[in-house]
Amino acid sequence: MRILFWAALVLLLTSCGDNDNNQAQGDNAASQQVYKWKLVTSWPKNYPGLGTAPENFAKKVEAMSNGRLKIKVFGAGQLVPALQVFDAVSQGTAQIGHSGAYYWTGKNKATAFFTSIPFGLNAQEMNAWLHYGGGLELWRELYAPFNLVPFAGGSTGVQMAGWFNREINSMADIKGLKMRIPGLGGDVITRAGGESVNIPGGELYTAMQTGVIDATEWVGPYNDLAFGFHQVAKYYYYPGWHEPGPTLEFTVNKPALESLPADLQAIIETAARAVNQDMLDEYTARNNTALEELVNVHGVEVRKLPDEVIQGLRKLSAEAISELTKDNEFAQRVAQSIAEFKRQATAYHGISEEAFYKARQQ
Amino acid sequence: MRILFWAALVLLLTSCGDNDNNQAQGDNAASQQVYKWKLVTSWPKNYPGLGTAPENFAKKVEAMSNGRLKIKVFGAGQLVPALQVFDAVSQGTAQIGHSGAYYWTGKNKATAFFTSIPFGLNAQEMNAWLHYGGGLELWRELYAPFNLVPFAGGSTGVQMAGWFNREINSMADIKGLKMRIPGLGGDVITRAGGESVNIPGGELYTAMQTGVIDATEWVGPYNDLAFGFHQVAKYYYYPGWHEPGPTLEFTVNKPALESLPADLQAIIETAARAVNQDMLDEYTARNNTALEELVNVHGVEVRKLPDEVIQGLRKLSAEAISELTKDNEFAQRVAQSIAEFKRQATAYHGISEEAFYKARQQ
Repeated sequence: MRILFWAALVLLLTSCGDNDNNQAQGDNAASQQVYKWKLVTSWPKNYPGLGTAPENFAKKVEAMSNGRLKIKVFGAGQLVPALQVFDAVSQGTAQIGHSGAYYWTGKNKATAFFTSIPFGLNAQEMNAWLHYGGGLELWRELYAPFNLVPFAGGSTGVQMAGWFNREINSMADIKGLKMRIPGLGGDVITRAGGESVNIPGGELYTAMQTGVIDATEWVGPYNDLAFGFHQVAKYYYYPGWHEPGPTLEFTVNKPALESLPADLQAIIETAARAVNQDMLDEYTARNNTALEELVNVHGVEVRKLPDEVIQGLRKLSAEAISELTKDNEFAQRVAQSIAEFKRQATAYHGISEEAFYKARQQ
Repeated sequence: MRILFWAALVLLLTSCGDNDNNQAQGDNAASQQVYKWKLVTSWPKNYPGLGTAPENFAKKVEAMSNGRLKIKVFGAGQLVPALQVFDAVSQGTAQIGHSGAYYWTGKNKATAFFTSIPFGLNAQEMNAWLHYGGGLELWRELYAPFNLVPFAGGSTGVQMAGWFNREINSMADIKGLKMRIPGLGGDVITRAGGESVNIPGGELYTAMQTGVIDATEWVGPYNDLAFGFHQVAKYYYYPGWHEPGPTLEFTVNKPALESLPADLQAIIETAARAVNQDMLDEYTARNNTALEELVNVHGVEVRKLPDEVIQGLRKLSAEAISELTKDNEFAQRVAQSIAEFKRQATAYHGISEEAFYKARQQ
């Protein structure tokens, strides 16, 4: 009886679709199908900021689709390990992922450019490059062979240089420094004579406390305060030269995306864009108040990396990026696109955003 | 026959809604209703940036709703004049508007705070304050008596100080200066002994050319280049102290919004949020390239306002804001909320965004 009922309904709907202007266009019967998707992430479930973004995304999609696209969010390890998000979505184990492109340099070194590169673009510039500077097209080209469609999925804003139990007064102080700093930033620290190690977030507090490492970068005041790093580190250094505007990513399995009706595809795209901004809004507001608490309540000593160190790190960063793109034509195209955008953005933001920050304080 | 058909369909749909897990929840028959809305704006139809944002919004809403919410966008004067957008949406002549809150200080002076105030918040900070700092709640409280629900509707980023045919070397050079600069910025110029005038955008080129005015601010390189101001002005000054992060607004007629099914309400909210970021992305990318063209192709002389002038303008801005909030308890609440947020954001962005801009160049 159910089958007969639906067959009749489909007939009714399709027979009238073109005849009534007060009804929405499209295949109404098909559009009532409910899709149940899995979203896997590289963060603990509901981890502040990083983990709340995919939850917000799922809520927005469900509300906008009137429940036709339900997305269940999995924390790292709940369905797949943190660093198997890319593969899981590529293979269709989950339809969607929330992670960071620079975790996938093992697939192609060019992925590093789509999160953040040392001395690269900040959040506002990354968004502009991605959406009006050709960045997203390059990203999609890079991910296409993996059956993945990437979308920008939030930013933390400029990060902090990190927590140190050693004073950094010159490049010489980086020699022998044991620091948790992954990716290109870690490469730079190694080039400076330090030792970059990768330790999971949950073990960092103890590693700092016991002196297993001398320093660690994490995110910024909001996430760092929650980890209690101020209890086990002497100095909090800025600025986050290594990750000036780290952009997260939503990756969607391409066949799954294409199997959706056009309205649900548009809902996914727009929800991602909204969450992309929302995460930056959240980090900006909460970093403000967390920094104040770190300084005023916990007496944290905030220090600027000396100019000489900034210059030294910048020189080594250029070498690291150059090495990354060697023998990788696609990475060279991306590096060139970002370099050109950065050249223009540095000039324009020098007389707009940066000049305004100065004007407000001077 | 049509009536009978639809009656039967409604019966069929409502009778099965609860019984099948493969069907979306909610009143499916009602949710197929098509809404046709009017969106009035304060900009010429399709004006670059400001005018493309509402078009993008309408497209996103139509795509996500599968054509169930169609929004027709009207340029300034096509349905109502530019500065009657607020009243038109308040009264329901149109269901939605795209404009700037600071045009409505005649309704309540507190509206000025929701666009931009001199030496206030930049785009990233405005978004954080609105969405995670209590700003949006205040904005909605302010607009509620007018039957309006506001949403952030895009930002141009930090603007330029403007085009000048007079050198500004000290505050004394502002005395007698005839400048097109509306709002609080204009108030500040008047306090400095200048004369602020308001001239429609389309007449500014001639007014500068014929010497009717000595200076004009407009937006930034992207929009300014299109107007050709470089042909009639000697100097292009920065930074845009008067409008550091002007936020546009979508205003929605409250009864109209509430008459929509919940999914379409969610679609409006999320589309606005996405367009809010998209406009900043567009301005950031296009200001970059336009500045380069202004300087390299047209030989424009870009000048920084001297520190003494910045300090003088900042002092007068504080006076103007204080005057604005006098005898207006609500404006005082908003001013206090922004001042507190700005204090924290200045501290945090001083060691993050601002410090990074410096590090990238030094």
